[in-house]
Amino acid sequence: MAISEKSIVSDTDTQYRALPPGSIIGILGGGQLGSMLALSAARLGFQCYIFDPNADCPAARNAARHMQAEYMDLDRVKEFANVCDVVTYEFENVPAKTAFSASQHSTLFPTSLALDVAQDRLQEKTFIRDRANVAVADFIDIQSEAGLIEATQTLGFPCVLKTRRLGYDGKGQTILRKPDDIHSAWENLKGVDAILEAFIPFIREISVVTGRNIWGQSASYPLIENIHKDHILHTSTAPAARDDGRAQALSKKIMDALNYVGVMATEFFELEDGTLIVNEIAPRVHNSGHWTQNAGCIDQFELHIRAICGWPLGSTVPTHTVEMTNLLGQDIDNWQDYADETGTFIHLYGKSEPRQGRKMGHINRIIKTTP
Amino acid sequence: MAISEKSIVSDTDTQYRALPPGSIIGILGGGQLGSMLALSAARLGFQCYIFDPNADCPAARNAARHMQAEYMDLDRVKEFANVCDVVTYEFENVPAKTAFSASQHSTLFPTSLALDVAQDRLQEKTFIRDRANVAVADFIDIQSEAGLIEATQTLGFPCVLKTRRLGYDGKGQTILRKPDDIHSAWENLKGVDAILEAFIPFIREISVVTGRNIWGQSASYPLIENIHKDHILHTSTAPAARDDGRAQALSKKIMDALNYVGVMATEFFELEDGTLIVNEIAPRVHNSGHWTQNAGCIDQFELHIRAICGWPLGSTVPTHTVEMTNLLGQDIDNWQDYADETGTFIHLYGKSEPRQGRKMGHINRIIKTTP
Repeated sequence: MAISEKSIVSDTDTQYRALPPGSIIGILGGGQLGSMLALSAARLGFQCYIFDPNADCPAARNAARHMQAEYMDLDRVKEFANVCDVVTYEFENVPAKTAFSASQHSTLFPTSLALDVAQDRLQEKTFIRDRANVAVADFIDIQSEAGLIEATQTLGFPCVLKTRRLGYDGKGQTILRKPDDIHSAWENLKGVDAILEAFIPFIREISVVTGRNIWGQSASYPLIENIHKDHILHTSTAPAARDDGRAQALSKKIMDALNYVGVMATEFFELEDGTLIVNEIAPRVHNSGHWTQNAGCIDQFELHIRAICGWPLGSTVPTHTVEMTNLLGQDIDNWQDYADETGTFIHLYGKSEPRQGRKMGHINRIIKTTP
Repeated sequence: MAISEKSIVSDTDTQYRALPPGSIIGILGGGQLGSMLALSAARLGFQCYIFDPNADCPAARNAARHMQAEYMDLDRVKEFANVCDVVTYEFENVPAKTAFSASQHSTLFPTSLALDVAQDRLQEKTFIRDRANVAVADFIDIQSEAGLIEATQTLGFPCVLKTRRLGYDGKGQTILRKPDDIHSAWENLKGVDAILEAFIPFIREISVVTGRNIWGQSASYPLIENIHKDHILHTSTAPAARDDGRAQALSKKIMDALNYVGVMATEFFELEDGTLIVNEIAPRVHNSGHWTQNAGCIDQFELHIRAICGWPLGSTVPTHTVEMTNLLGQDIDNWQDYADETGTFIHLYGKSEPRQGRKMGHINRIIKTTP
């Protein structure tokens, strides 16, 4: 486990070797996803260093080191990456310059291509449609109010105006139901880049979480069914009904096109006729994959660590059917009730301010066990 | 989750309230047990502070803070305990003065009574026999070589000479098979306090892991069967065969007598006629309880955290039968093979020196799943 045994990774995979236990994993972002990644990495004997501007970020509680600096402080990013054997990220809005700098001074997985694609809805949808040949909703780049009016004529009503960048949990999205909605929606954009998407009359929201390593091997969990409330994920249940493996195959096509390394989540809309339309991809562990922590198989956090460290991916076949429920804001006050439920597992993020709608934790309830 | 909401614990349980998420748990000792306690505590939203003299102790990798100081540096112990809402320990050889100091400046669970009893084989066996009314091997306090000779005449050969303090993994134990063995065994003691124990012709080594809270509620896992190699635990398998609940009931009697709070392990010898003889107790999470991490129920580390924080204990009924195997010394070099096994979960401790016999990690293999 000396330094000299650690891997040197180049752009080709020829020099790639597995990172041994004791190696240092850098994580850009210290929220709950970074925290849970660090917990899984510690279990495998790795050390995690966290890069996050907030002094009391959740991951700082359970990592070997926390470098508190701004993402655009590239000197600190360089210093951080230099001591890490591999660097990863817990959110897709890491600035491109930060990711590029990390990749210059360490190995960055997933690569910055995945980040570039996922940060911008226009690039994301174009890549998925044209490079991966996977269906997405029809979409049109919007540059002006006149362009928006024209686009609504092409896509019809209802349709959805979305900012190209920095949207999450429904933020930056507006449904246009009639021509009268156009002007105020355009004004509300305040000039930020946007796309207009056709409205998808889905019967079910589903997602897939898959890990892929540098040799192109992959491992997917069964299909996940998601229920949103007020645009925020409320519950995820898996294995979901009607899992014919198509969603996993589509997700794999996208990951192969990206030459992706790590865990990626793909969210789909399912239509009444069974058609699957990709809604978006997340180049990271994902809220809809939290159920895997109590599913009786390798969880998504460990899967990501294994994938970026070149380990065998392990088994993603669960023995339990699990329903994950997010605890938002004051939901966390019920922790004693959840702690008293048999078959319920509690995961709390250590955030100090239970603001409305803020993800404070989640619970995994085992619904069924299959030998 | 403000400071004012946190519990104040007195010697009576009347003032006791559960510690909310966000509270600070102090752990004396930063080895693998402290590390795994900290991982479980982080999952519940707690912060862990580690007290350990070693800069690179395993738990420092995954805890909020590490106070590096000697156990006998009571100023630092006071400083540490003052900022913790509750203090616990991961090993029973915490000096009595250290534990007492911690208990003066915070709440210490398990209390120092459990520590006093478990640190000294003479006190331990006397307490279990006379206060808990549970069977132990016959034993005699040894003060001199003449006393040792007389004791062998009382207990017969073979018999086992054990140091009263600081023994673990078979260290400090000598089997006397005949009168000729006495003199050299006495010389080897070099004057440290010892006891002589009757040899127990056991057919099976078993253990029980139980959590108990301040209100006297308890939760036990099923019976665990242990195989030792060279006096070091090799495998633990649970649920074991022939579990009639007697071992759990005996363990509970001892815990009640100690008014114990936290997780305790009790090791038993099983005789051919089914008699159970307590070998020793460990006032902490225990190597033979590591299988619970992948058993589909609350694991022993979380059970301990729940118990010392006044949380509901949760369910200790596993859905999986698990075989835990310790990875000693160079065994850890096979991590890639273990990582590739379906149904095998890897736990590595992040220790840098794989010395012979040193516990470097363990693997949990799922043998069977029961709905």
